[in-house]
Amino acid sequence: MSVARPHPEHAGYSIEDLRRLVADDLAAVDHVIVGLLDNPVEMIPKIAGHIVSSGGKRIRPTLTLLVARMFGYHGTRHISLAACIEFIHTATLLHDDVVDGSTLRRGAATANALWGNKPPVLVGDFLLSRAFRLMVSDGSLEILGILTEASAVIAEGEIRQLAIANDLSVSPDACMEVLQAKTATLFATASEIGAVVAGEDGSGRQAMRDYGLSLGTAFQLVDDVLDYSALQNDLGKTIGDDFREGKITMPVLLAFERGTPAERRFWERTFAQVNQRDGDLEHAMTLLARHNTLQATLEEAQRHAVLAREALEDLAGNAYRDALLDLVGFCIDRKF
Amino acid sequence: MSVARPHPEHAGYSIEDLRRLVADDLAAVDHVIVGLLDNPVEMIPKIAGHIVSSGGKRIRPTLTLLVARMFGYHGTRHISLAACIEFIHTATLLHDDVVDGSTLRRGAATANALWGNKPPVLVGDFLLSRAFRLMVSDGSLEILGILTEASAVIAEGEIRQLAIANDLSVSPDACMEVLQAKTATLFATASEIGAVVAGEDGSGRQAMRDYGLSLGTAFQLVDDVLDYSALQNDLGKTIGDDFREGKITMPVLLAFERGTPAERRFWERTFAQVNQRDGDLEHAMTLLARHNTLQATLEEAQRHAVLAREALEDLAGNAYRDALLDLVGFCIDRKF
Repeated sequence: MSVARPHPEHAGYSIEDLRRLVADDLAAVDHVIVGLLDNPVEMIPKIAGHIVSSGGKRIRPTLTLLVARMFGYHGTRHISLAACIEFIHTATLLHDDVVDGSTLRRGAATANALWGNKPPVLVGDFLLSRAFRLMVSDGSLEILGILTEASAVIAEGEIRQLAIANDLSVSPDACMEVLQAKTATLFATASEIGAVVAGEDGSGRQAMRDYGLSLGTAFQLVDDVLDYSALQNDLGKTIGDDFREGKITMPVLLAFERGTPAERRFWERTFAQVNQRDGDLEHAMTLLARHNTLQATLEEAQRHAVLAREALEDLAGNAYRDALLDLVGFCIDRKF
Repeated sequence: MSVARPHPEHAGYSIEDLRRLVADDLAAVDHVIVGLLDNPVEMIPKIAGHIVSSGGKRIRPTLTLLVARMFGYHGTRHISLAACIEFIHTATLLHDDVVDGSTLRRGAATANALWGNKPPVLVGDFLLSRAFRLMVSDGSLEILGILTEASAVIAEGEIRQLAIANDLSVSPDACMEVLQAKTATLFATASEIGAVVAGEDGSGRQAMRDYGLSLGTAFQLVDDVLDYSALQNDLGKTIGDDFREGKITMPVLLAFERGTPAERRFWERTFAQVNQRDGDLEHAMTLLARHNTLQATLEEAQRHAVLAREALEDLAGNAYRDALLDLVGFCIDRKF
């Protein structure tokens, strides 16, 4: 299924270009991650390594690195903090996949599909505990406060998402709140601690939090669209995962709101009752197209992308700031 | 099944008597816990409340309170730190029950039995994140270091336990290491932070860590015995949970070591292959009795109880120290 993007002229942003700018830092982050996974208990490097090395885009740690460098930071604390961010993210993914019963992530089998639910639950706990230990080693109560708050907000967002999982009566605002808690919070935090570690404590820090929150929101809205439009084989994402799990996302919520009584009955059967048959996913995609809800969701993502770019406006220009601008384009125009 | 206790003269220690000594503190801890569970997302107070209020003995937070008071602490920090300890413990229980597939805890249905695996995984994460936030609010990097280290050791212990779950070739030493990581670490930490919050930083702190580690070791060894000997209806513990899960504990490991070839084949079928039939639990209990391994495990518990009492020897005597001594007796002589 093809979806017209609001700003096709932005197509072609490459995450690799951005990463090249902080290549040494990213290599150092990888070194920290690999070191923390080096454990005689075989299950730990096996499962954590599976997900850590399975082709993730490392957007969140890259954010921390780019922001710290943008503000002229020359120390090394941003390295372990970026690793922390990636560990929190990875722990969340492991538990997410268990909770969602997902079998495929980034084109590879999920840890729970390969080893059952038990190891990923415990290895997620392990990664989270290592992330907290890393934060404590950093030694800043301020940053600890930001990261533990983020962790609490994410955990609550996960539960709210589960609570509304099959509930079509949820409002778009509530849906957006969950999305921001679950995803955008970690983007905001990744950016903010990059600023804090560089000694920014006023408008620069707030600008980075705003930037990350808007970027993360745009990123997740695009993700929700891709779940109904990406090409699985090429792009390492299963189409229809959200559909099969009855996960209420913006495209579906809008289609339900705009639907005829018959269409609403379809959504109620497939989402509220999760009673799905062959051909249902294809019919769902037809309905999303009929009501232009993938397009509407992309436009909402674009609105947040504009906010993200605006957050960068008052900052002094340099290559890192340009990269953060490009990252917005990448998050909007990505196809995987 | 009846098991002779090594020190029947200690029978009758009451956890209620100990708790009475810090009743106001415990009420304050409960207040903190209830406050943190008060959340508009219904699933959180429901599931967390189910396990928090389901008749747990609150031994770990009681430890923190008793130790802080023993050292003459008159502030309030020990309250939120004790709540932290209970939250870490509760989060571990929720994930444990999911991983073990347990259906009964303290005589009541487990959260996973009532609501499936998804909510307890996420509510466990929520509790852990709240615990970390509470620690950061306390504001001591030293205590944060102790608690995050404990959390990391516990998480690793959980994974090691899963890794050896059906492995009868594990050594008693390795089995003991897992037991100490999983259970005794949090006892040690609960005691140690009681000392640290009271300003003890030398021998007193170390004594409390030693005390907690030995107490927790004795506690868990008794727990492993009770799993083959407690009276379910009276005491809120299911007999044979460990057996059904194929969880290797000291009584079984010793029986395997001491067993005849035929007996070893029985243990291999029921534990390594987890191929169990009617009557197997009863036969297992007969074998444990034949080789006196419940008795041997209780004697090992008693040895750690002696170490726990010795750790208290050089401390000035007061009612709180007496209570910590009595707690050792309770942990050894408890029947639930």
